[in-house]
Amino acid sequence: MSELARALLAPRRIALIGASADPTRLTARAQLYLRKHGFTGDILPVHPRETEVLGLRAYPSVAEIPGPVDLAYILLNTQHVEGVVDAVAAKGIPAACVLADGFAEAGPEGAALQARLLATARTAGLRILGPNSMGIVNLNARIACSVNAALEAESLPAGRLALVSQSGSMMGALMSRGAARGIGFSHLIGTGNEADLTAGEVAGLLVDDPDVDAILLFLEAIRAPEHYAELARRAHAAGKPVIAYKLGRSPYGAELATSHTGALAGSDAAAEAFFRAHGIARVTTLEALLELPPLLIGRKPLTRAHRAVGVMTTTGGGGAMAVDCLGVAGIEARAPDATAHAALEAAGFHPHGRLLDVTLAGTKPDRVAAALGALQQATDTDLVLSVIGSSAQFRPQDSVAGILRAREAGGGTPIAAFLVPQADASLRLLAEAGIPAFRTPESAADCIRAWCDWRTPRATPPAPAIAHALPARPDEADARRLFAALGLDSPFAVLAAPEDDPGGIAFPVALKILSPDLAHKTELGGVRLAIPDAATLRQEAAAMQTRVAAAAPGARLTGFLVQPMARGLGEAILGFRRDPEVGPVVLLGTGGVTAELFRDVTLRLAPVDEAEAMEMIGEVRGLQPLAGWRGLPRGDLAALARAVVAVSQLAARSDIAEAEINPLIIGPDGVTVADAWVVPVKEGS
Amino acid sequence: MSELARALLAPRRIALIGASADPTRLTARAQLYLRKHGFTGDILPVHPRETEVLGLRAYPSVAEIPGPVDLAYILLNTQHVEGVVDAVAAKGIPAACVLADGFAEAGPEGAALQARLLATARTAGLRILGPNSMGIVNLNARIACSVNAALEAESLPAGRLALVSQSGSMMGALMSRGAARGIGFSHLIGTGNEADLTAGEVAGLLVDDPDVDAILLFLEAIRAPEHYAELARRAHAAGKPVIAYKLGRSPYGAELATSHTGALAGSDAAAEAFFRAHGIARVTTLEALLELPPLLIGRKPLTRAHRAVGVMTTTGGGGAMAVDCLGVAGIEARAPDATAHAALEAAGFHPHGRLLDVTLAGTKPDRVAAALGALQQATDTDLVLSVIGSSAQFRPQDSVAGILRAREAGGGTPIAAFLVPQADASLRLLAEAGIPAFRTPESAADCIRAWCDWRTPRATPPAPAIAHALPARPDEADARRLFAALGLDSPFAVLAAPEDDPGGIAFPVALKILSPDLAHKTELGGVRLAIPDAATLRQEAAAMQTRVAAAAPGARLTGFLVQPMARGLGEAILGFRRDPEVGPVVLLGTGGVTAELFRDVTLRLAPVDEAEAMEMIGEVRGLQPLAGWRGLPRGDLAALARAVVAVSQLAARSDIAEAEINPLIIGPDGVTVADAWVVPVKEGS
Repeated sequence: MSELARALLAPRRIALIGASADPTRLTARAQLYLRKHGFTGDILPVHPRETEVLGLRAYPSVAEIPGPVDLAYILLNTQHVEGVVDAVAAKGIPAACVLADGFAEAGPEGAALQARLLATARTAGLRILGPNSMGIVNLNARIACSVNAALEAESLPAGRLALVSQSGSMMGALMSRGAARGIGFSHLIGTGNEADLTAGEVAGLLVDDPDVDAILLFLEAIRAPEHYAELARRAHAAGKPVIAYKLGRSPYGAELATSHTGALAGSDAAAEAFFRAHGIARVTTLEALLELPPLLIGRKPLTRAHRAVGVMTTTGGGGAMAVDCLGVAGIEARAPDATAHAALEAAGFHPHGRLLDVTLAGTKPDRVAAALGALQQATDTDLVLSVIGSSAQFRPQDSVAGILRAREAGGGTPIAAFLVPQADASLRLLAEAGIPAFRTPESAADCIRAWCDWRTPRATPPAPAIAHALPARPDEADARRLFAALGLDSPFAVLAAPEDDPGGIAFPVALKILSPDLAHKTELGGVRLAIPDAATLRQEAAAMQTRVAAAAPGARLTGFLVQPMARGLGEAILGFRRDPEVGPVVLLGTGGVTAELFRDVTLRLAPVDEAEAMEMIGEVRGLQPLAGWRGLPRGDLAALARAVVAVSQLAARSDIAEAEINPLIIGPDGVTVADAWVVPVKEGS
Repeated sequence: MSELARALLAPRRIALIGASADPTRLTARAQLYLRKHGFTGDILPVHPRETEVLGLRAYPSVAEIPGPVDLAYILLNTQHVEGVVDAVAAKGIPAACVLADGFAEAGPEGAALQARLLATARTAGLRILGPNSMGIVNLNARIACSVNAALEAESLPAGRLALVSQSGSMMGALMSRGAARGIGFSHLIGTGNEADLTAGEVAGLLVDDPDVDAILLFLEAIRAPEHYAELARRAHAAGKPVIAYKLGRSPYGAELATSHTGALAGSDAAAEAFFRAHGIARVTTLEALLELPPLLIGRKPLTRAHRAVGVMTTTGGGGAMAVDCLGVAGIEARAPDATAHAALEAAGFHPHGRLLDVTLAGTKPDRVAAALGALQQATDTDLVLSVIGSSAQFRPQDSVAGILRAREAGGGTPIAAFLVPQADASLRLLAEAGIPAFRTPESAADCIRAWCDWRTPRATPPAPAIAHALPARPDEADARRLFAALGLDSPFAVLAAPEDDPGGIAFPVALKILSPDLAHKTELGGVRLAIPDAATLRQEAAAMQTRVAAAAPGARLTGFLVQPMARGLGEAILGFRRDPEVGPVVLLGTGGVTAELFRDVTLRLAPVDEAEAMEMIGEVRGLQPLAGWRGLPRGDLAALARAVVAVSQLAARSDIAEAEINPLIIGPDGVTVADAWVVPVKEGS
């Protein structure tokens, strides 16, 4: 265990700086909760005046605490935090947790305060959890170093799930929801504003903890994506799933999550791509965070998900409801295949359709186990779901016995249960047995969808260095040269003056003004299409120069771009961005107004390889006609995939912020860049 | 109260036909549960051999029961049900409930059995609940006439929600989930296969019951839509909301719901349109069925929903999560407007952004009430949501006191609560007070979305009779004549022979073969476009005749259709169908492949008026460019709306099953029918 892991996860001597002697105060809680939940190490209150705080010897300063200290929990007000950090570091304490808010989430002044705090800590070699951290709870080690009111509970069930949450209050919410159904935690750690330690880095400390089977993340924003990538890689190697609930699925939520934490919002599509690429399972219903772990623990991601499940039920309506919700989530409840069908018949069941109704056999464990075992034999499903009706409420032991027995028999496909009535005792039995159990059809569908989506962390494809030099203020010709350097070369000529010769470009042509200053050329009369011959080209260029100079007098005009009029079978938009949260991404969408009207765009972490690029093409609905849909002529999708790979390799060019080809024209044989731009990273950013 | 209502909802003398003397049998349960839950009327077992069943006098036949009987619960096996129906009717019993399954849901034989059962009952004047009905529970009247295992519970909380469910097992599931949080039911009635009585008709009986505040429907299929329309109209007049959960949102669920009940599946979009038109609130999360009622009870639908709420929270992370889920459901968490902002400032709060964080004041009822009251003053929100953190778990009274106080103060906008931790006691307090309380952020968003979507039942627009006669086997010209009779007249000519003169049709023209037998003319060479002049037209028509006759030798060719080549700004698909569940609907989508690729279609019950048609146009994304989007030229959307109204009036033509214009070309001034077809209702259907 690293020094940091020991300090944060297993501290034996904890200084409570600013601990209140008044037990009704928030800042008294850490001391009260540590004792209440049986902390066996040393609690060291630091108080400027009192010599005793709530029955324990108090020290006037950190320096005066005798002996080493593992962890400082700084409970002081915002403005006093900075002043104590040097003393904490001087004492040789490796880590401090800061409770106060009013830092980066509170505006520019708070952000400056947080930056100074971080600088001081970095200089002194001190790691900071927070500010705005709800603290650290390690239930196996009986460490409740937190002011979270959920610790009011008389006893807290210890378990094998670790939660790292940017929101402190969600620690308590998840702990209480877990406790109500027999699901306990090993750790609950609040990372707050993450001035220094991110949820990703803290979660990384938990991977090697023998008390931890799975790591849950409640995230408002992703900072330092490399921490999560590293966490996910190590966690997969250790066989411990990482499961995330992240805010920001709606624009209002994204705005709030970031205003709440002082981070910049990335796009949710980018976050989604990030989680998938790194093999972090993302859930979108709250209780799925509690329900998904037993489905992933001890298992590896499916190499090829069927996105289909076998469903057995003791309640027709409840089973149909589960099937419907699964379908909404894109998961098919599939009728037994020939193998499973034969096994069911052999066991005396007569399946028909998508739902195996065993109402009459519902509480006979042998029969249920036989049915589940038979369904597990299907070769085209990813899971067997047992939907349990009223027996789950009135005969918990009976209702779960068949599942336990089937599990003992050890068929390959996982078994999970959805309990239709209120059935706390059954949920508890299933939790104890480590069997995935769902409380609502919605969370059942969410978890099973997440199971099918879960992947092994991908190996990032190589991104060869691109030597091509880009001017500080590129125009379209510069952008085209950059794409040409990536292997996306389409004919064009640059004219310095209207009378210049476009060389070998075939007429008819398109003519565009070149300028690093003009983003919207069409509106200024800076684009002319379908020019039939050289004479017209010269006239048009001269007229364009006059027109644009008059319309945009301040703009630097760098010449004219001439390109053949391209026709194809379809158009795409192909772009590269650096997402503020997750970093470089590549986007592909239908061209024209369609992409915008229908938000018909897909996205991956960049760079991608050709297989991923082909997957992306398959996800853009507007490109499906080019794949031979309804007998329409086929576009060169292999060339499109190579173009996606090429553009994605801009990830290696840290000087490029954004780039886009719109449209990229897709022909029967190759693709053509019809318009392009590139934005360098701003200096100083 | 009608005789039927009395028999079903308040029977005093119940015959249990086929009651078992063995208390472990399913068919013994009705008698056991009636007694267990305190039925004070007469239980009358009918048993062929026993003179006493579980301590009560039994009768060898229905006829031998002395005195009148209100309700017969037929517990016999499938094959014996038919035999007893005549005797039940002869005894003058107004209604019978049938438990057995194996009828229409079990295949053609069962369907035939069910049809015979219904015919016998109809002849005898007996109303049937079921078959496959889980019975009737009236908790206020202590009538537990059901075999549902949920009645094993020692006591059942009576309440003011009535549930009518096609699924029997969902009765128990909802009862138990309600009981766990203090939500009780007045009635729970299982309608099963609905051979006779539908959920809509049974629910209609509940509208006038003084014990009922709201009616909940759990539906697998809609049969007899007119019952629901009538129910909804009467329920709105009585101020009692109707809330539905309906299966069939996914194709697998739809398939199952119908195979399970023997009904035909309509489209879920049609069901959605049906519920909205009739002012039935539809929820899509299971527990929203329990959570939505207090939000609607005592309120009228919003005349114009802002689709926005004010949000107050005592937990930053929990509040942000609620805002995010609301946003995903299309509901904005809106910052206080000037009025609310001023009221908050006056009360000492300093709001900024979308979320009013009152963590410090969170358990001070006066402060919470003041904040909620101020948020209620916003004129641009539909609801105030209070998000409660750990206090809901540990100080239930404190955590809800502020809400109760704010409600007493009587501001207009409803207040609801989302409880972030496990907080059963707080849920119970809120349920007792009739305040909407949500257990998960997902159901919170679903309920608030349903509140914003909830409408007053619409008045069906008039559909004037259309006298136009349609041949039994119409070709495209017949379809065009029908649309012309509706007011959608576009120029065309019919040629009986290739050499005929197309009259005043302007060249260039399109030429199509006419045949009632050919659905796909293009593939057979039956369409030629952009024919420049009369000579070419004659040649093309002659060649087409030869070509099509060779390709489709059996088809009856009825001539040629000639129409001007139409160009417009956009294309729509405009159709009419009879949905198997809800009846006539009108559909509007983008034309071409876009509608199909993006499922860019909207739908309403037919007929519609122009305002509804304009709403539909606003919902089709691909038509937005015609509304002046991004400065594109505007299409004549008023003409399009009139076309939608016209086509929707086919609802009055019961001889027409389906009709479609695809494409309808939208110009700057008017619309043009470019292709059309119509399908008459099949004889005998």
